[in-house]
Amino acid sequence: MSHKTDGNEFDRISRFFAPLASAGEGAPGLTNDAALFETAGARLVVTADALVAGVHFPEKESPELIAKKLLRVNLSDLAAMGAVPHACLLVLALPKEVDDDWLEAFSAGLGEDLGAFGVALVGGDMVATPGPLTLSLTLLGEAGEEGVMTRSGARLGDMVLVSGTIGDATLGLKVMNGELAGLDETAAGFLSARYRLPEPRLELGRRLAGMASAGMDISDGLVADLGHICEASSVGAGIDASRVPLSPAARTALVSDLSLMEAILSGGDDYELVFTAVPGREPEITALGEAIGLQLTAVGTILEGEGVRVEDGHGGEIVLNHTGYKHF
Amino acid sequence: MSHKTDGNEFDRISRFFAPLASAGEGAPGLTNDAALFETAGARLVVTADALVAGVHFPEKESPELIAKKLLRVNLSDLAAMGAVPHACLLVLALPKEVDDDWLEAFSAGLGEDLGAFGVALVGGDMVATPGPLTLSLTLLGEAGEEGVMTRSGARLGDMVLVSGTIGDATLGLKVMNGELAGLDETAAGFLSARYRLPEPRLELGRRLAGMASAGMDISDGLVADLGHICEASSVGAGIDASRVPLSPAARTALVSDLSLMEAILSGGDDYELVFTAVPGREPEITALGEAIGLQLTAVGTILEGEGVRVEDGHGGEIVLNHTGYKHF
Repeated sequence: MSHKTDGNEFDRISRFFAPLASAGEGAPGLTNDAALFETAGARLVVTADALVAGVHFPEKESPELIAKKLLRVNLSDLAAMGAVPHACLLVLALPKEVDDDWLEAFSAGLGEDLGAFGVALVGGDMVATPGPLTLSLTLLGEAGEEGVMTRSGARLGDMVLVSGTIGDATLGLKVMNGELAGLDETAAGFLSARYRLPEPRLELGRRLAGMASAGMDISDGLVADLGHICEASSVGAGIDASRVPLSPAARTALVSDLSLMEAILSGGDDYELVFTAVPGREPEITALGEAIGLQLTAVGTILEGEGVRVEDGHGGEIVLNHTGYKHF
Repeated sequence: MSHKTDGNEFDRISRFFAPLASAGEGAPGLTNDAALFETAGARLVVTADALVAGVHFPEKESPELIAKKLLRVNLSDLAAMGAVPHACLLVLALPKEVDDDWLEAFSAGLGEDLGAFGVALVGGDMVATPGPLTLSLTLLGEAGEEGVMTRSGARLGDMVLVSGTIGDATLGLKVMNGELAGLDETAAGFLSARYRLPEPRLELGRRLAGMASAGMDISDGLVADLGHICEASSVGAGIDASRVPLSPAARTALVSDLSLMEAILSGGDDYELVFTAVPGREPEITALGEAIGLQLTAVGTILEGEGVRVEDGHGGEIVLNHTGYKHF
């Protein structure tokens, strides 16, 4: 918390964020320049993600949900590596319109999720901006005993699996944009909740660290993110669209408009995990899914070559226009 | 580097930032979701600071200098605690006007300073914004063997000292805003350079960690930041304005307008250190200043009570209108 800040911002940090920090292990009350941790020979894992109003969430989104989504997209990055979250730093660039009521709601939502996920707020910065509300969060965690899961270990013949159901978040965004008007309220609510409040797969990631050959979270879409694994592992992959697990709501939407399959396969923001494993691990993975109550579904195979080929379940190929993002 | 990013941003990360990261100890090439470190039972110190175009630097500031200032304000937070910097995460919210030439210059400036200060870029995020360029950086470091310097250890009778010269940056900002037009070019250039490119006092901070009773960096102004030490330590302080060390350029400016003393005492952005020490440490501190080639000047004393009282060197009190920032 350095550089010149106006008095109002000090008051606001003190009022809305210091209480969240006081229970943390780092800098109690956010009163020093930096936060301090003891680490006992651990392998530290750290990530940062930013959200901009009007770009990553609707301008009028509830402050509680913005806070939770900000934390959760970062938690998902640690889930993607099988790491355990510990502490975070919060950076807020606030436009004038953000008032104390907004900050109070934001801090309440953040506090709930910090508690739920066992994360301490240990520092950050608050600045003024003439632009839109811009938030970023840096999350620190620790690798588990099994080490971390990376993107680069996928091998020829490995199974490709996903957690949960795929495509809900991108369909949820369509719902919020007034598309998919034919859906009933329950289905529409389910899909938009999946977009607004992702569920980071921390326990799954942690337990996959010694089991999966490669893995990551699905933030850019199943095909694009599996493509990242393929690129990092120097392999290709084939997935069978008919095996991709869909929620009842997504299935309902798809039945009324089959062209939505493209959005389901290439849309982002699900924050499920996509991972690979040698076929012999299948019973172990099935048992893991049952133990943590999360559906784990084999959707394809690691192949020679490069890139991700999507089949339709009847021998045909589905060519996606928007897989994109190949150059990272 | 999670959530949906357009292909252009992947290209840009890959082109401008992955080369900076490839030499780092964390995530080589920025290809995983999070960065990984080995820490050998260290005391981790972590800080984050944000800069917004038009708020914290002029819109047309050189990209090299923006990059360096962003890193350096964070380095100063570690200097303030006597910690050694190791790695950083960079979050950029980029408006459309930021083109590849800008990013190339920014990344060149950042690379220079990462090398100069021995810091590895290990991760971050790049997003689009309809607002002004917004940058934040999280810096991770380690406490030295002597532990960290905090704000809360100042005791009655301690000397109050500062490093370097005070007030240059705030006068430099006035120069950049077209004030202080009477100054010669050399003096004006010196002052604005002190604003644009601060020098984090890392070695001083590290060596003070076992020597100072309390300390922090001067980002909000000498009086305000000494006030933070007083508040954290439950003491007051008196400083003698006539002993506050001024650069030749600041002295020249002050001579032609004595009312600038208020700006010198209360203006921010010097990123010098203000610290306290028991009087018996004076010879040791003098020797330290000589060893590292940095002027260290006693400017006052820790007193009973609260707040910072400024004297004019002739028994009078200088009352500042803009000390502010008392409520943190």
